[in-house]
Amino acid sequence: MSLFASIQTPTLLINPAVARENIHRMAEKARRQGVRFRPHFKTHQSAAIGEWFRAEGVQAITVSSLSMAEYFARHGWQDITVAFSANLREMDRLIRLARETRLGVLVESPEVVRALDAALPAPVDAWIKIDAGAHRTGLAWEDPAPVRTLAETLTATRNLRLRGLLTHAGQTYSARGPADVTRIYLETVDRMNGLRDALAAGGLPGLELSVGDTPGSTCSPDLGRVDEIRPGNFVFFDVYQMEHGICAPNQIAVALACPVVALHPERREVVLYGGAIHLSKDVLIDGQKMDYGRLAFPDETPGKGWSDPIPGAYLRSLSQEHGVAVIPGPEFERIHPGDLLCVLPIHSCLTVAAMGQFLTLDGETLNTLNIGE
Amino acid sequence: MSLFASIQTPTLLINPAVARENIHRMAEKARRQGVRFRPHFKTHQSAAIGEWFRAEGVQAITVSSLSMAEYFARHGWQDITVAFSANLREMDRLIRLARETRLGVLVESPEVVRALDAALPAPVDAWIKIDAGAHRTGLAWEDPAPVRTLAETLTATRNLRLRGLLTHAGQTYSARGPADVTRIYLETVDRMNGLRDALAAGGLPGLELSVGDTPGSTCSPDLGRVDEIRPGNFVFFDVYQMEHGICAPNQIAVALACPVVALHPERREVVLYGGAIHLSKDVLIDGQKMDYGRLAFPDETPGKGWSDPIPGAYLRSLSQEHGVAVIPGPEFERIHPGDLLCVLPIHSCLTVAAMGQFLTLDGETLNTLNIGE
Repeated sequence: MSLFASIQTPTLLINPAVARENIHRMAEKARRQGVRFRPHFKTHQSAAIGEWFRAEGVQAITVSSLSMAEYFARHGWQDITVAFSANLREMDRLIRLARETRLGVLVESPEVVRALDAALPAPVDAWIKIDAGAHRTGLAWEDPAPVRTLAETLTATRNLRLRGLLTHAGQTYSARGPADVTRIYLETVDRMNGLRDALAAGGLPGLELSVGDTPGSTCSPDLGRVDEIRPGNFVFFDVYQMEHGICAPNQIAVALACPVVALHPERREVVLYGGAIHLSKDVLIDGQKMDYGRLAFPDETPGKGWSDPIPGAYLRSLSQEHGVAVIPGPEFERIHPGDLLCVLPIHSCLTVAAMGQFLTLDGETLNTLNIGE
Repeated sequence: MSLFASIQTPTLLINPAVARENIHRMAEKARRQGVRFRPHFKTHQSAAIGEWFRAEGVQAITVSSLSMAEYFARHGWQDITVAFSANLREMDRLIRLARETRLGVLVESPEVVRALDAALPAPVDAWIKIDAGAHRTGLAWEDPAPVRTLAETLTATRNLRLRGLLTHAGQTYSARGPADVTRIYLETVDRMNGLRDALAAGGLPGLELSVGDTPGSTCSPDLGRVDEIRPGNFVFFDVYQMEHGICAPNQIAVALACPVVALHPERREVVLYGGAIHLSKDVLIDGQKMDYGRLAFPDETPGKGWSDPIPGAYLRSLSQEHGVAVIPGPEFERIHPGDLLCVLPIHSCLTVAAMGQFLTLDGETLNTLNIGE
């Protein structure tokens, strides 16, 4: 039976060759520039896919929750940064993890630093979270004084080793294209270096810098004077990255195969079994137009999995289980109830988190931590 | 230990008394008007909560996937409509379900009707899906001819019993308030009756009408000349319904308890552990403002669970695991890292689907079908 014949319900396809090439390219770039590659594993959340990174020499990883840290520690990862401001309500899990692995935590207030120091049984790496312009979390890059105070608080602790300054330059996600992404990335690196220099001048030398989201790490030819990058999304990319010129369509490594359940020729619309609970409701908004994903045909050609995006086709609405796709061109005529269409997701991280499982083009199932491994 | 002290990670709280009152009110309304109440169980997806409906005399239910149908059939439900255009790729599961329970399916094309009839081993109820103005799925209400053709195809089958006409009047979700919802609901009932009358005049008498989303079934005092209503969301309601005047704040029965991980006093922002993978990215958009949820304080008062919404406070952004809440008023001063805040979700159905589990105010865990029951 072919791969597609066996699919009954929305199924997340993965093209391993494309994902591994994405990993290889980023690993090679970091290696050439002497920058540590600490990929963010929240995008794939899969021990099996983690091995593809290990094969490229990756030893240090980033995660965004303690369950991910526990899962990857169980799968042999021994240098894990939890890139999420430390949650004091999970102290027992932090304590266990600190015993099991080289753990890195993010801090941004003396209050949390003191609570961690009092509770932790063994030293962990502490990164000061810096807001280099994204305005989500962290201490402002423009103002070294509170950063210095926090750094001094950290150096006075017993169980937190001040390792460096870390930022997520999420503002690259509002850039106007690759050149603008590169400009923002290099500006972020400058800001972080300025802060590091100010702290060094004030008696706190040797701090590391950790930066690097997918747009910045992908677009900027020069990674700059940093110690590590932490991109995550690049392993699969998605329609967001494609639309912003960060990746090509054939670098997208995942697609949701969805059964066709109804057709509306008068509107050139196809109703898919595949909705918000499968894809997430992440959306590209363009004026009044909501775009929840792009469409492709399944493609049995070895190494393909799905076709190039169908021109002009997109998901215009998502209910809990349904998606409504508009197929404006002649491709509409080829589609019948019971067929499959593939949806390229707007945001692959959230689609993977929702689905919890991948099907490779060879018919192998790859689990994430959400499937009880 | 108090309920809140035990919470480490984002946890979906449920107030059973509020949910049961919501169920009672709708069941009573349907009973008084002699309309069958076939609630949509996709909102809660929980066998335990299903029993609260059974206690109100409910015997027939609606679901939106075959896994839900299988789950509730296992939990003793014997009259189940799958309110989703039949998926030909799940024929083996449809066949098993048709043997186990009184199953209702939705059809909108002769092609699918013929495929179902050829494969099914036992009769199932067939509802013709009508588009009464929502333009998502179904045959157009304005044009009786294709409906009649499909009805005649159905009456000629061996294994599909034509039961009636069914619509989801999703256009109530773009109404401007309760009066507008009522107008749309009654217009939908009129359209459906017009179509039923046209089919009866053409030799197809006795068809049932199935209508009724949450806004329409809640707002319209008169349910009109219909046979059944299928609201789902009303069991929990949410911020969407509250903002559109469909429910009061104290009728919302679920809230996501989220640890506070960081504070940004200069922006009056609180960073929560609680993001897109917990709440879903459903959003209320108001000009440039994105609103992903409202905030409340945990409240240990018996029967409460959480406070009234904090005035002016909302979630302005959601990442995979983080949420950023704006707390403009003096309540900000009371919040510290390690505290909990409760998020009232924009769309409770998607939050429940993402979380998979509830914690009652008494500390009892209620599972959904996603927790391997």
